[in-house]
Amino acid sequence: MTGTVYLVGAGPGAPDLLTLRAARLLAEAGIVFHDALVNPEILALAGTATHIAVGKRCGRHSTAQAFINKQLIDAAGKYKVVVRLKGGDPMLFGRAQEEIDALHGAGIEVEVVSGITAALAASASLKVSLTRRGVARNVAFVTPRIGKTENASDWLGTAVTADTAVIYMGAGEAEAIARALIERGRASSTPVAVIESASLTTESWRFGVLSALGDMARQVGAGPAIIVLGEVLLDRVNAQSRLRRLTLKTA
Amino acid sequence: MTGTVYLVGAGPGAPDLLTLRAARLLAEAGIVFHDALVNPEILALAGTATHIAVGKRCGRHSTAQAFINKQLIDAAGKYKVVVRLKGGDPMLFGRAQEEIDALHGAGIEVEVVSGITAALAASASLKVSLTRRGVARNVAFVTPRIGKTENASDWLGTAVTADTAVIYMGAGEAEAIARALIERGRASSTPVAVIESASLTTESWRFGVLSALGDMARQVGAGPAIIVLGEVLLDRVNAQSRLRRLTLKTA
Repeated sequence: MTGTVYLVGAGPGAPDLLTLRAARLLAEAGIVFHDALVNPEILALAGTATHIAVGKRCGRHSTAQAFINKQLIDAAGKYKVVVRLKGGDPMLFGRAQEEIDALHGAGIEVEVVSGITAALAASASLKVSLTRRGVARNVAFVTPRIGKTENASDWLGTAVTADTAVIYMGAGEAEAIARALIERGRASSTPVAVIESASLTTESWRFGVLSALGDMARQVGAGPAIIVLGEVLLDRVNAQSRLRRLTLKTA
Repeated sequence: MTGTVYLVGAGPGAPDLLTLRAARLLAEAGIVFHDALVNPEILALAGTATHIAVGKRCGRHSTAQAFINKQLIDAAGKYKVVVRLKGGDPMLFGRAQEEIDALHGAGIEVEVVSGITAALAASASLKVSLTRRGVARNVAFVTPRIGKTENASDWLGTAVTADTAVIYMGAGEAEAIARALIERGRASSTPVAVIESASLTTESWRFGVLSALGDMARQVGAGPAIIVLGEVLLDRVNAQSRLRRLTLKTA
């Protein structure tokens, strides 16, 4: 028997932001390999399957990745439907390609099922379009590199040039990121938001300007957080400033 | 009675790439306002609702937009659940913000439900990660402006600087886009793909290099198409070149 391995996006966290296809595959799966951060309510949709947490949070350990690849290949020899469940969308900032290439190398069929990525979930929660007409015609999703020698990839240039920039996996280094963006030419007054746990009931957000990003990020909790910056957020930042002035006046 | 208006992403086309939340809202909806391009199989999920096509394909007519806004406001006075169904994700390259602002202005509650955007559906179909490790750490989604005076928005700079760029609504001007990108500094040998009708059974794609983008785009049909460029596509482009050489040899 050779099964198919499905790389499935678990979406941003809310179980009902899973796609219909993902839900069906979870119900059919014989085995599910999932990231540490996947919502248990989503895993419950794969009630009859064996669940294996592959616990990698930052994707730093290549030995761990090789082990995951091997587990997926072995599982395809035993189960018709193998699900590899990844937070968000599998093709953005995951290590999907290593898994696809390893599976293809072993002659195993792979299918990818998209998921809602955190940037879009945050945009929906904030009710702020990432490409508001007349304000933004493009958006970049970037992962920052702070304090490392730049290679060909220019995350700073991309985040400075794009009308709207969404920074994944950057909340822990927010102050250095803000400094780097301002040095490279992004205005210190650029509206910015930090969104934690987008789509979950524990979701929270902070609005401000780029020069205050470090302080804002320090106020968020331990959930996964993304940073959004750009003029599309101007109304929301202004509304918060008005509210703050009003609160100070009445205090 | 004042209902809630849900701006719902219909995803890239395949009905089962809708989210569970979107499917539930369609089933509960009293009325559905939908784009012209939404798959009839998705609309069938809103079997009991009134369906109204708001037929705008390019979002160019502000009078049409004002009329849609008014229809949504009126509908919220009559139905508990009003769905505004938009192709892809509502917060990317749509006119969601106008609708949200108009509804908020009329005191009507709005919720946004994310959808799978074409770039992610294309990435899943191609089995090419948009941020392949060691190759790409960021991706930009852009809409091009050809032959128009540049305002502050720099789509070309963004598409040239980003490791991976996805160009929405550009297939019709592909040749001019390729020329502009190359003039601005993107290598003419950059791997590129044109994907038509991502996720549908009629899906097709072409691989090549940036200098050949115009020819590639002329070969695609009338379905919605996006352009993906960047080194993440290198393996796929090389595989196609090898196949072509092999075909020529055996011919």
